Amino acid sequence: MTSRDDRKILLSESEMPTQWYNIVPDLPAPPPPALHPGTKEPAGPADFEPLFPMALIMQEVSMDQYIDIPGEVLDVYRMWRPSPLYRARGLEKALDTPARIYYKYEGVSPAGSHKPNTAVPQAYYNKAEGVTKLTTETGAGQWGTALAFACALFDMTCEIWQVRSSYDQKPYRKAMIETFGGVIHPSPSDLTEAGRAILQANPASPGSLGIAISEAVEMAAPDPEVKYALGSVLNHVLMHQTIIGEEALLQLAKVDETPDVLVGCTGGGSNFGGLAFPFMREKMAGKMDPRVLAVEPAACPSLTKGVYAYDFGDTAGMTPLMKMHTLGHDFVPDPIHAGGLRYHGLAPVISHIYELGMMDAISINQTECFEAGVKFARTEGIVPAPEPTHALAGTIRQALEAKEAGEERVILTALCGHGHLDMAAYDRYFSGEMVDYDFPEEKVQDAMNRIPAV
Amino acid sequence: MTSRDDRKILLSESEMPTQWYNIVPDLPAPPPPALHPGTKEPAGPADFEPLFPMALIMQEVSMDQYIDIPGEVLDVYRMWRPSPLYRARGLEKALDTPARIYYKYEGVSPAGSHKPNTAVPQAYYNKAEGVTKLTTETGAGQWGTALAFACALFDMTCEIWQVRSSYDQKPYRKAMIETFGGVIHPSPSDLTEAGRAILQANPASPGSLGIAISEAVEMAAPDPEVKYALGSVLNHVLMHQTIIGEEALLQLAKVDETPDVLVGCTGGGSNFGGLAFPFMREKMAGKMDPRVLAVEPAACPSLTKGVYAYDFGDTAGMTPLMKMHTLGHDFVPDPIHAGGLRYHGLAPVISHIYELGMMDAISINQTECFEAGVKFARTEGIVPAPEPTHALAGTIRQALEAKEAGEERVILTALCGHGHLDMAAYDRYFSGEMVDYDFPEEKVQDAMNRIPAV
Repeated sequence: MTSRDDRKILLSESEMPTQWYNIVPDLPAPPPPALHPGTKEPAGPADFEPLFPMALIMQEVSMDQYIDIPGEVLDVYRMWRPSPLYRARGLEKALDTPARIYYKYEGVSPAGSHKPNTAVPQAYYNKAEGVTKLTTETGAGQWGTALAFACALFDMTCEIWQVRSSYDQKPYRKAMIETFGGVIHPSPSDLTEAGRAILQANPASPGSLGIAISEAVEMAAPDPEVKYALGSVLNHVLMHQTIIGEEALLQLAKVDETPDVLVGCTGGGSNFGGLAFPFMREKMAGKMDPRVLAVEPAACPSLTKGVYAYDFGDTAGMTPLMKMHTLGHDFVPDPIHAGGLRYHGLAPVISHIYELGMMDAISINQTECFEAGVKFARTEGIVPAPEPTHALAGTIRQALEAKEAGEERVILTALCGHGHLDMAAYDRYFSGEMVDYDFPEEKVQDAMNRIPAV
Repeated sequence: MTSRDDRKILLSESEMPTQWYNIVPDLPAPPPPALHPGTKEPAGPADFEPLFPMALIMQEVSMDQYIDIPGEVLDVYRMWRPSPLYRARGLEKALDTPARIYYKYEGVSPAGSHKPNTAVPQAYYNKAEGVTKLTTETGAGQWGTALAFACALFDMTCEIWQVRSSYDQKPYRKAMIETFGGVIHPSPSDLTEAGRAILQANPASPGSLGIAISEAVEMAAPDPEVKYALGSVLNHVLMHQTIIGEEALLQLAKVDETPDVLVGCTGGGSNFGGLAFPFMREKMAGKMDPRVLAVEPAACPSLTKGVYAYDFGDTAGMTPLMKMHTLGHDFVPDPIHAGGLRYHGLAPVISHIYELGMMDAISINQTECFEAGVKFARTEGIVPAPEPTHALAGTIRQALEAKEAGEERVILTALCGHGHLDMAAYDRYFSGEMVDYDFPEEKVQDAMNRIPAV
């Protein structure tokens, strides 16, 4: 009934996958372990226990290829999943390309992005172990919104530290988080030791993701009924996102397509991994052979310009050491509008996969990305968030390459969220105030000097 | 495959209705005609020709029960249609009601509301008659966004006058309209006679919908390649919206349900009519017997407190006279957050249906509506626009009545848009700054004194 000429390829709720996919056991070599920040010995489950419930810690180190999605989580997923796969016929026509472009759209979720895919199971597993409150940090606000929503459903408290500059600039995010019942503070705050120390030194501090993490972690660690939740980077987070790719596989099969190229944007890597991992499994099994392409912002290019080294996940150096592509844990990226891609490192498992030569990466400047976002909005009707405009810019390059080559290539991309709460960025684009930043070679070199020796 | 216990009832693109429904020929008595504002004789097609293309004028006065949706319009509808019908299982549980609540969600459209359902055919028919540019007014911005989107698809220019107070308060709307390629001016502007006259009298005028209409009409009327587009009130606009109800009928049939109550919010009436008319047809045919309930804001209650009289559609008195429920064409409602419901009148055809006794109406204060909206967001995951919180507040009342009566009633409501660009209203609600307004009896009495004698 569904054909390639339809605009949307839908799955019914009964067709929704019921397992997450763990790529780790399928890889030709295991990823290097996380290290304890003090002893620099491999970190064990006990090292993560003050912050995460045991079920998530076990998922983090699991060697099972599949993990069943709990029934209560599936029931919540059904509020918006399966998410639609769109054929970008309007964009194809505007580009006059022989390529067929498909995009998997996660903006239909309550938070407007892919983040609820992991926020919901994280809240569920915490609740099951008696946790009554979750703390987290948020930058642009997508992750904070998702966790507030998930906590509302499981009757838990959610306390969020948002980087003050974003808190002040994006009042709509605060209102949305409060609508979902979340409690939100600008960071640095006077509620934590870490926050007070920063404020004492600089009462006008605009904050940073690193400081916000320190505050959220400080509030969670001492109380067994309070835990911390992270929205990207870790194995279990990426695994929860694989429902995106599993659905996309089923949807493409309905119209008898296999992708020639997969394109996704990378910040921490959870949306990219969520789409790509199930396709990489099929590729490792010899069932298809897509090129897998990550697109990162030119101002924060951890894959294309960073080093592969053990580094901290946070700026303050409180987390375990993870081997990953990094620009240095205290590197502060220029203020591009894609706040969700402004992270110094990339998920260890994706960094490892990149080192294995299983994928490619490029970086693109933000004005090219917003140009792609506007073209997409006018032809497909969806205003993309700043983050996935990177995936769209990469997709458009691929579609034009196919046109050049005169080939009917099949391109699959991930549209990980809408931009309704990011319209100020579009306003800057139209007013001509948006700038591109040269890659800050010296600043990165400086930050790399502080990557710890292991 | 789909069951009542699913969260969503979906239709495939091939199941989408291909005709709009015109309720006029099915009514037991014909609605009174529009009158020429000068002669006060029934207005003919020629009276509308400076503003609208002939195809839309013919739809406005059509006595055909069904009108085929053009293929190019169907193709655009498929970008987001058929829209989902949700079973509100989360809300039902929170209310502990035996009622089964279904909501038809139009927020999946590019503009985030039901407005593109008519913006797209209006752009299409104008384009077909050689029109290159459409002008319109917009208040909160939903209609302006929808028309800008539609014009982008048909390669037309779209010029929008937005009430200055909204223009200043809602910069995200401007950015979204520009993203879709629209040109937007604050109204009053110095681009028109009407605007300049107002500015001369009061350079700091905050504007009004009436002034913005005057500006858009002034710019359209003299040039045959430029026409004006209206987002509600008229017969053809309501008819375009009937795709909502036609889809909902098919969706409920899939799970073998017939509604006991239909609840919708009314401003101009296009979303309400779009949902209700197809069900009214079934009711007139004796196939079901739902109660049909309109919910209007207590601050602008044209049905429950207005009179049924010939009045102007705009504040300045430039339009034909329409017989409708009205609070007086120069009545200025208090500044409630549901900007889309702040209209002095109600669509003539709905007013007529109300007079025929085929539906009921109530009014609700905005704080009860936002309380409903927050409850809905926390249980269903969608943050509603301020307008449909009225429908939700009415729905919750109905669900609690069913609980009181211990009856398994089936309630169907229309969630006509999301609130992502209206989060400032939620912020006011949470900060305790939102107020309810007493119905301004004297102000209405005063405005009613200026309803023209016919």
